[in-house]
Amino acid sequence: MKIALAQLNYIIGDFEGNRLKILEAIARAGKEGSDLVVFSELSVCGYPPLDLLEREDFIAACNRVVGNIAESIEPGIGVLLGGPEFNTSDEGKLLYNSVFFIQGGKVQQVFRKTLLPTYDIFDEYRYFEPNREFRLLEFKGKQLAITICEDLWDEQPFESEFSRSRLYTTDPFDKLNQFNPHAIINLAASPFAHRKMEVKQSIFTGKATRYGLPVLYCNQVGAQTELIFEGGSLAINSQGEVIKRLAFFKEDFGVFDLEDLAGGKAALSENPIPDRIEMMANGLICGIRDYFGKLNFTSATLGLSGGIDSAVTLALAAEALGPDQMHVLLLPSQYSSGHSIDDSVQLARNLGVRYDILPIEELFNQFRDTLHPLFQALPEDIAEENIQARIRGTLLMALSNKFGNILLNTSNKSETAVGYGTLYGDMSGGLSVLGDVYKTDVYLLASYFNRHGEVIPEHILVKPPSAELRPDQKDSDSLPPYSDLDRILEAYIEKQLSPEKVVALGYDKSLVKKIIKLVNQNEYKRYQTPPILRISSKAFGVGRRLPLVARY
Amino acid sequence: MKIALAQLNYIIGDFEGNRLKILEAIARAGKEGSDLVVFSELSVCGYPPLDLLEREDFIAACNRVVGNIAESIEPGIGVLLGGPEFNTSDEGKLLYNSVFFIQGGKVQQVFRKTLLPTYDIFDEYRYFEPNREFRLLEFKGKQLAITICEDLWDEQPFESEFSRSRLYTTDPFDKLNQFNPHAIINLAASPFAHRKMEVKQSIFTGKATRYGLPVLYCNQVGAQTELIFEGGSLAINSQGEVIKRLAFFKEDFGVFDLEDLAGGKAALSENPIPDRIEMMANGLICGIRDYFGKLNFTSATLGLSGGIDSAVTLALAAEALGPDQMHVLLLPSQYSSGHSIDDSVQLARNLGVRYDILPIEELFNQFRDTLHPLFQALPEDIAEENIQARIRGTLLMALSNKFGNILLNTSNKSETAVGYGTLYGDMSGGLSVLGDVYKTDVYLLASYFNRHGEVIPEHILVKPPSAELRPDQKDSDSLPPYSDLDRILEAYIEKQLSPEKVVALGYDKSLVKKIIKLVNQNEYKRYQTPPILRISSKAFGVGRRLPLVARY
Repeated sequence: MKIALAQLNYIIGDFEGNRLKILEAIARAGKEGSDLVVFSELSVCGYPPLDLLEREDFIAACNRVVGNIAESIEPGIGVLLGGPEFNTSDEGKLLYNSVFFIQGGKVQQVFRKTLLPTYDIFDEYRYFEPNREFRLLEFKGKQLAITICEDLWDEQPFESEFSRSRLYTTDPFDKLNQFNPHAIINLAASPFAHRKMEVKQSIFTGKATRYGLPVLYCNQVGAQTELIFEGGSLAINSQGEVIKRLAFFKEDFGVFDLEDLAGGKAALSENPIPDRIEMMANGLICGIRDYFGKLNFTSATLGLSGGIDSAVTLALAAEALGPDQMHVLLLPSQYSSGHSIDDSVQLARNLGVRYDILPIEELFNQFRDTLHPLFQALPEDIAEENIQARIRGTLLMALSNKFGNILLNTSNKSETAVGYGTLYGDMSGGLSVLGDVYKTDVYLLASYFNRHGEVIPEHILVKPPSAELRPDQKDSDSLPPYSDLDRILEAYIEKQLSPEKVVALGYDKSLVKKIIKLVNQNEYKRYQTPPILRISSKAFGVGRRLPLVARY
Repeated sequence: MKIALAQLNYIIGDFEGNRLKILEAIARAGKEGSDLVVFSELSVCGYPPLDLLEREDFIAACNRVVGNIAESIEPGIGVLLGGPEFNTSDEGKLLYNSVFFIQGGKVQQVFRKTLLPTYDIFDEYRYFEPNREFRLLEFKGKQLAITICEDLWDEQPFESEFSRSRLYTTDPFDKLNQFNPHAIINLAASPFAHRKMEVKQSIFTGKATRYGLPVLYCNQVGAQTELIFEGGSLAINSQGEVIKRLAFFKEDFGVFDLEDLAGGKAALSENPIPDRIEMMANGLICGIRDYFGKLNFTSATLGLSGGIDSAVTLALAAEALGPDQMHVLLLPSQYSSGHSIDDSVQLARNLGVRYDILPIEELFNQFRDTLHPLFQALPEDIAEENIQARIRGTLLMALSNKFGNILLNTSNKSETAVGYGTLYGDMSGGLSVLGDVYKTDVYLLASYFNRHGEVIPEHILVKPPSAELRPDQKDSDSLPPYSDLDRILEAYIEKQLSPEKVVALGYDKSLVKKIIKLVNQNEYKRYQTPPILRISSKAFGVGRRLPLVARY
């Protein structure tokens, strides 16, 4: 039996586009002699549809697409298509997260998801009733165990220390295995996390090894607002070896012979997962590209400060959208150093990006004049620093509004964590590119862009970071070195260690206390940040929900 | 048996404050001869603690408070205290949402929540494993059915048409009833919704009537960021009559004799729920007061435009915080009408609030000059309109940053829905007061404030709404009358009707289509709005999760 994996990039709710994409893949699979085509989880509507699942018309549209596909394709080919299914019982959640087995002009069978991830960015129990019935798909003499994403993740290593590997009280594959399947098929929508690539692969190779069965895993690819799905679908033989991995961060397609996989045909080639920073860069580029493409926007703007964050954001965006689609502004004040402008100009030239220089000193003075009746002779403080950032935000948004390009936010995760940023100033933007990238990784990304020669001027990589909002300001005036800061933040945010356990890693108690206090106090700023491209297992945004008003 | 209900206002994570409050209530209950004191759901930490529940140190702190309370109180009194409980099994979610029965110096028994609301603003299955064991609390010869909030809501009328009354496959009280309890006790954290007050009461009176049992319902009171808990705890006799309702929107305490309730002692007095708009006003005032109080802020600012939204926001805030804690700005441009300033000045004087007038024309001109190299002779458009709004936002935030008062956002739900607002301009603020109040209700709130005489100048109520961002602009230039707009929005947002069903209510098809498109297209703006005080069953914010990038 030949099984095709169709790794596609869906637009949520674009039923016509998704339908055509699916039909095209089925036609191709047919031409290549496939018996069965496997799509990803909720492929009919794209994952995650969120509260669109609460709309009757949305579910009806999903059903129409499934029906249309069943009627449009050759009756001989089998299709496993993910989509929401109405729960016809009069109790429990309204929907199931299901896979429709289509063949012979209609839906022949339905398989439902058992384990509904409801943590981090996942909210599946918000919408879905869990499956409680277990059976295999029998097709062309083969018995196939149909699973949906988390169904194979009954046991998993979470990054947080205060968590357990067995989050569920059921192991769906264990139940399916009682019926002696010939292979495991998994339809997934599993988002990218730069430190979890090996873990993810081991989930599937582990099942293959443990049960001596081939695994065919079809993942969604492409970005959906903040979530990036890396694709990387897998064909694994019954010895747990990866025979083939589909592309990362783009659509791909592969046909696999179940006999080969079941016979334990060896891996044809070494197929290592690329380096962490390369994966991160490609993930972010995919995230930018899809955000724009799926919103029907083509061009972007941002403010080049002369620092490393805006430089790396620009390099990523120029690769995602093309340098000709970028129009950046240099917005120097009286506190900006000469090298900030020179470095920024050099970067824009290296990348071939249009830039303009709009000094903000006069606007800043005008704001101070306007506010003089209220501020009188009060000393300058954070209020004046923020005015500069907000003038810049207003100028960038004016460009965005006038010419229809989206403002990219350039804040990194380290500063977003401790609240070093101005709401409605440098925290503005339609999309935060680096909001899940710690400063130390921003430097590694910069080096990655310079791997074939200087793109980001070397001086940007070596000068001490500064917000340049007052004379001679340096980040190191008020923060520890980023190497320490980032490790403390990661221990607190990703690993969710208690303050005591963070200190036990070897950091000063008062420093840890200060940093954690900054993280907690700045929840209110993060509440209003743009969507942040998620590349870690715990990003700021929808997957991290903390009370803004709290004393803890 | 005498049972006390302690309806308290907790600060999330303020363990010391919560502990002292709880001990004080237990002491009072003891003095008033109570046998048992009932607190609200998760009272130890305050509801909803959100992802703080994922922190080991947070759970440890909860446990310490429970232990301390058990050791601190008189051994004779019984206490039902809500708190998270560690799940000692090696599988399933890490926690239970539990009630600790404390007596004789220790936790004697634990009762766990069965129905875990995971919809709208609720995410309980994110953290908690459901209860599967049912038994009563036997105390002083009485058998008590201990339930936690949703446990009594096995059947409920949702506002959305595409939903069902039986969201769960278990009815916990039905199981408890098999053991023949003498009364039902419910520890709750049930948030306010202005159209659900009668429904909420009927849930409890309905259980009492159906089973012929008294119900004692203890709700949390006070606001937690966007969520407002109205309190209104109930003592209901076995005929389903409300004997006593504790106060709305403030802490309260009551002791009830179970014999009286069980004997069906009649209601002593008529106790109608106040008018919808009065409840809404008091809810919003509670929301503002607690947001500031719990963050340790005392003073607020906002921009008075001369329109009704900023006027009503100011009236609410002045009542919540005191007029002496308000400092408002009038920020006229060349497009502002004279009456806008006159009306605003009159309002500030009526309320006794400090105001300053800072004209923004020069700043606006300076922005146009700065941008001239880029904009050249392009016609003025939305870009220039937004610059004005952002200048105002920057001036208001400068005041906020300099003097430490929080900027209140004044956008209403109607304009937030259709995207009539400028990100980083009038959409700025620490808290949105009216973001869940439709424009037609804003007018009713204004009339409510004028019920004893003019507070909000009559002219503000009668003039046609305008953003005044270009000459002679009126809201009605591009929007239908608010009475129509609001009904369409409510049908689409609260009731989640399909576009076809909204049209079937009697509206023009192209109008409905246009409005729904505006709602969907502006998801990106709402992503970055401040927390919105929630007064309806479906507010923008944490309870409404839609993909920003989607085509639907």
